Amino acid sequence: MRTTQYLLSTLKETPSDAEVISHQLMLRAGMIRKLASGLYTWLPSGLKVLRKVENIVREEMDKAGAIEVLMPVVQPADLWEESGRWEKFGPELLRIKDRHERPFLLGPTHEEVITELVRKEINSYKQLPINLYQVQTKFRDEVRPRFGVMRAREFTMKDGYSFHLSDECLQQTYDKMHQAYCNIFDRLGLEYRPVLADTGSIGGSMSHEFHVLAESGEDAIVFSDGSDYAANIEKAEALAPSGERANATQNVEKVATPDTHSIEAVSALLNVEAAQTIKTLLVQACDEDGEANGVVALVLRGDHELNEVKAEKLSQVFAPLTFANETQINAAANCDAGSIGPVGLTVPVIVDKSAAHLADFVCGANENGFHLTGVNWDRDITDYQVNDIRNVVEGDPSPCGQGKLMIKRGIEVGHIFQLGTKYSEAMKAGVLTESGKHQTLTMGCYGVGVSRIVAAAIEQNHDKFGIKWPANIAPFQVCVLPMNMHKSHRIPDVANKLYSDLQNAGIDVLFDDRKERPGVMFADMELIGLPHVIVIGERNLDEGLVEYKNRRTGEKQTIKIDEAIAFIQSQLS
Amino acid sequence: MRTTQYLLSTLKETPSDAEVISHQLMLRAGMIRKLASGLYTWLPSGLKVLRKVENIVREEMDKAGAIEVLMPVVQPADLWEESGRWEKFGPELLRIKDRHERPFLLGPTHEEVITELVRKEINSYKQLPINLYQVQTKFRDEVRPRFGVMRAREFTMKDGYSFHLSDECLQQTYDKMHQAYCNIFDRLGLEYRPVLADTGSIGGSMSHEFHVLAESGEDAIVFSDGSDYAANIEKAEALAPSGERANATQNVEKVATPDTHSIEAVSALLNVEAAQTIKTLLVQACDEDGEANGVVALVLRGDHELNEVKAEKLSQVFAPLTFANETQINAAANCDAGSIGPVGLTVPVIVDKSAAHLADFVCGANENGFHLTGVNWDRDITDYQVNDIRNVVEGDPSPCGQGKLMIKRGIEVGHIFQLGTKYSEAMKAGVLTESGKHQTLTMGCYGVGVSRIVAAAIEQNHDKFGIKWPANIAPFQVCVLPMNMHKSHRIPDVANKLYSDLQNAGIDVLFDDRKERPGVMFADMELIGLPHVIVIGERNLDEGLVEYKNRRTGEKQTIKIDEAIAFIQSQLS
Repeated sequence: MRTTQYLLSTLKETPSDAEVISHQLMLRAGMIRKLASGLYTWLPSGLKVLRKVENIVREEMDKAGAIEVLMPVVQPADLWEESGRWEKFGPELLRIKDRHERPFLLGPTHEEVITELVRKEINSYKQLPINLYQVQTKFRDEVRPRFGVMRAREFTMKDGYSFHLSDECLQQTYDKMHQAYCNIFDRLGLEYRPVLADTGSIGGSMSHEFHVLAESGEDAIVFSDGSDYAANIEKAEALAPSGERANATQNVEKVATPDTHSIEAVSALLNVEAAQTIKTLLVQACDEDGEANGVVALVLRGDHELNEVKAEKLSQVFAPLTFANETQINAAANCDAGSIGPVGLTVPVIVDKSAAHLADFVCGANENGFHLTGVNWDRDITDYQVNDIRNVVEGDPSPCGQGKLMIKRGIEVGHIFQLGTKYSEAMKAGVLTESGKHQTLTMGCYGVGVSRIVAAAIEQNHDKFGIKWPANIAPFQVCVLPMNMHKSHRIPDVANKLYSDLQNAGIDVLFDDRKERPGVMFADMELIGLPHVIVIGERNLDEGLVEYKNRRTGEKQTIKIDEAIAFIQSQLS
Repeated sequence: MRTTQYLLSTLKETPSDAEVISHQLMLRAGMIRKLASGLYTWLPSGLKVLRKVENIVREEMDKAGAIEVLMPVVQPADLWEESGRWEKFGPELLRIKDRHERPFLLGPTHEEVITELVRKEINSYKQLPINLYQVQTKFRDEVRPRFGVMRAREFTMKDGYSFHLSDECLQQTYDKMHQAYCNIFDRLGLEYRPVLADTGSIGGSMSHEFHVLAESGEDAIVFSDGSDYAANIEKAEALAPSGERANATQNVEKVATPDTHSIEAVSALLNVEAAQTIKTLLVQACDEDGEANGVVALVLRGDHELNEVKAEKLSQVFAPLTFANETQINAAANCDAGSIGPVGLTVPVIVDKSAAHLADFVCGANENGFHLTGVNWDRDITDYQVNDIRNVVEGDPSPCGQGKLMIKRGIEVGHIFQLGTKYSEAMKAGVLTESGKHQTLTMGCYGVGVSRIVAAAIEQNHDKFGIKWPANIAPFQVCVLPMNMHKSHRIPDVANKLYSDLQNAGIDVLFDDRKERPGVMFADMELIGLPHVIVIGERNLDEGLVEYKNRRTGEKQTIKIDEAIAFIQSQLS
């Protein structure tokens, strides 16, 4: 492709509304343009990358025995009423009405539609297992779309769904999909990690997320340095500290801690480690019907953070997790939030395993401006329950028993679930078994954020000059960059010949035939980030040479013009 | 692909709600399933066809120098307010609101979005012309979706848009697109015709439709038997009959025509040809502001039909064309609709060219139960205007001056327009010219109904047993059909080997490895309609033979097993 016949649309300046580097570079490199909040047009070079990602995903899904279908974007509400999600799904679900005032929605995901299809088309155990997928436009009405296509409202997703007679069979397909996803991310040329994940609101029994590693990642993912263990931070279990809890050696003492509104301030004032203090958080409690009712106290070591997902799963805690308001705090503890402590509290108390391992610790006195020191469990607080409710931190022992935990940042680009019978039961999807009995199907689901991968790849592969595309998803494989072509006799001939030779060799090449200054052309090519660049200049031509530059390694070398095609082919293979 | 590992989903019975053959066969062959009115899921074999069509379209667009982009399905209302279509577009435009109550729509077409893109990205004449296209999901909220994917609400379309400095440049790209469309339909293997079309509500100066010929087609398309002239019936000009009008020979006579409520009845009663009578239709008239105001009379020969598109274009006629109601008819003619005639009418009278060529004709007397005979223009009706307002009929002279017109049925699958400045003017899309002046862009647009082509191909290519796929868009190229495989020792070996040999030769093959009766398997394969079928049976195997059947020609022959691959390759090339 010649740049003069293309829509290049590079920008020199970084658009002010782009917060993350991938968004900035996708705008600057002319890959996308914003149409409205969370809605993007893919320009030619961006679309080429998107399609390359899409094709790799498709090929690996096909290889793994999944079959491609295509479901509508617009879905009727009645199926979502059957599954219960019409009510439960938040305002991210864009509910619409057609001209006859019938309710529909723009699909954020397709569990209902595929289950409707399968319950009609699959009637016998002989047709199972089956694994169907699609690559499709999805819509999620994000309250605050941001980061470009990373969190857009309209996006491209590969979503797959498998149906089985047994959990064992589901496990087999799940393992196959796990492997297919590894193959996908290997081929994409991205550094990634599959991690154990919480099954969350979609439900089900087992789940892995696939994260592209990048410092800018929104998610914390946790690894063991001594095993294969990996999980996202929501899921990673924090073990109780080893050994017995120390015995109490101090008596409880009430100390004045005026104007100390943080753990740090209290620690400094009393000259104790934050790890020797505890913090007490009041959140909405939950009655037997799942309604918010009263409050419950969550107790953590001063240096630890609450894990909301873990807390939310406790039967005593209202979901979604909601912190108590001022009135509730005053009623429960008769003080401000910063002075709450478990001693004498009459609401239920849930203590994190690490906090429960402390002896002679510091906590709020339930009286503004005062704390207690020398507090001990069982002696001073007798009615409490111990659970894992904190985020792990680096150095924690791995829950697998081997090694210590490390934490990295990741961008979630894939997610596989064992859904079980959540949808098939609600929607009555079953078959006749070999023995003639009706059996509800067991279901798995498998998502890849196709458009998100494009952004994640850039977050992981860039420098201050622009994008450094992995070979398999670069918009073009090679760039031919002639310097001052319009001022030279020889350069246009050499450049045109090289361009057509590369094309004839089946290589996808961008030929920058613009009449621009070399500096502008170099800057654009660094920005766009094609892996292999051939620079044609007068001086090298005298010796029959052109310059080669590898965008990823930065390596430069001169090569003979006659050997350029063979050289590029060897680089590509 | 093995059928046992595929979602075959063929149906023996024709679903009762499928009116047209393509819809019936797409359901029966397991290509699509209805999710809701006008919303279809594409099952695996249907999707394969859709993708093959899509790829042929894409390849020809790329070859013609068009550049692919991808715009959002969901579009903000404000762009449509700029173009004026937010108000004008009917209820087919699905208007929606997001969670913040901001108005959006599901895109039925993308003129506004592309014009918004181009006015931002294209600033200089140097970047022109540019021709951008996408293949994308569109939505049109049809009041009565029907015929399966032929008139669905959600559908796949290729829409392209070009931008130019001059009409000459637009004409060049338009011609290129015309050729690209011919290439597309040639490669699809369909019998088609490009025809001159009316530019209708999209506006612009020149337009061609591409029709797949099929007896079931909704549209009438018109050809000359003596030239290349072709047009759709809305557009085809009806010439005035040749020669001078005959002189009046009769006097006006009022005759009783009780209980005659049709042209046929009047002709029979008075013993005159329908072609010697006229009919007078009253429609809403239009004032200078384009508002409906009063009525106007349209006069046609008794054997001719009104062309609503032609009538609507007349400045005196309100658009959309609306027939006068009973009150208006009584006020204008003092009789029922069946007895109106132009003699003595005080409303404006517009006479079709053929009707205006009659002498001594019969018309309504503006009195219930009476007609006039021996009526003559200029003598009996003096205030009238002559226009072409009828549909052409077979045998009419071609407007090109050569040959007579023939009429066939077609299914519109492509449409190209010269839009001119309709959108670029409203949305202020212009560039600086070489001389530094601001100039509004001239625009073309080019659509292909990708999913509709799948249905149209079937309407044109089927028999009573099922689909007869053209080679390039068949879901698979070849079918391997072993008879009673589970009862034989040899057949599975031969079939499996043939299947893998075909695959290794790069041939897309469907292997029917089900344990079904031969009759069921034959019926399914005829229904699915793959072009080449190899039947493996015990008897032929004794002689080292298999049977080949060509689904399109019906030709059968036995071939040596060892030569089967080479034979199929020769059939495919």
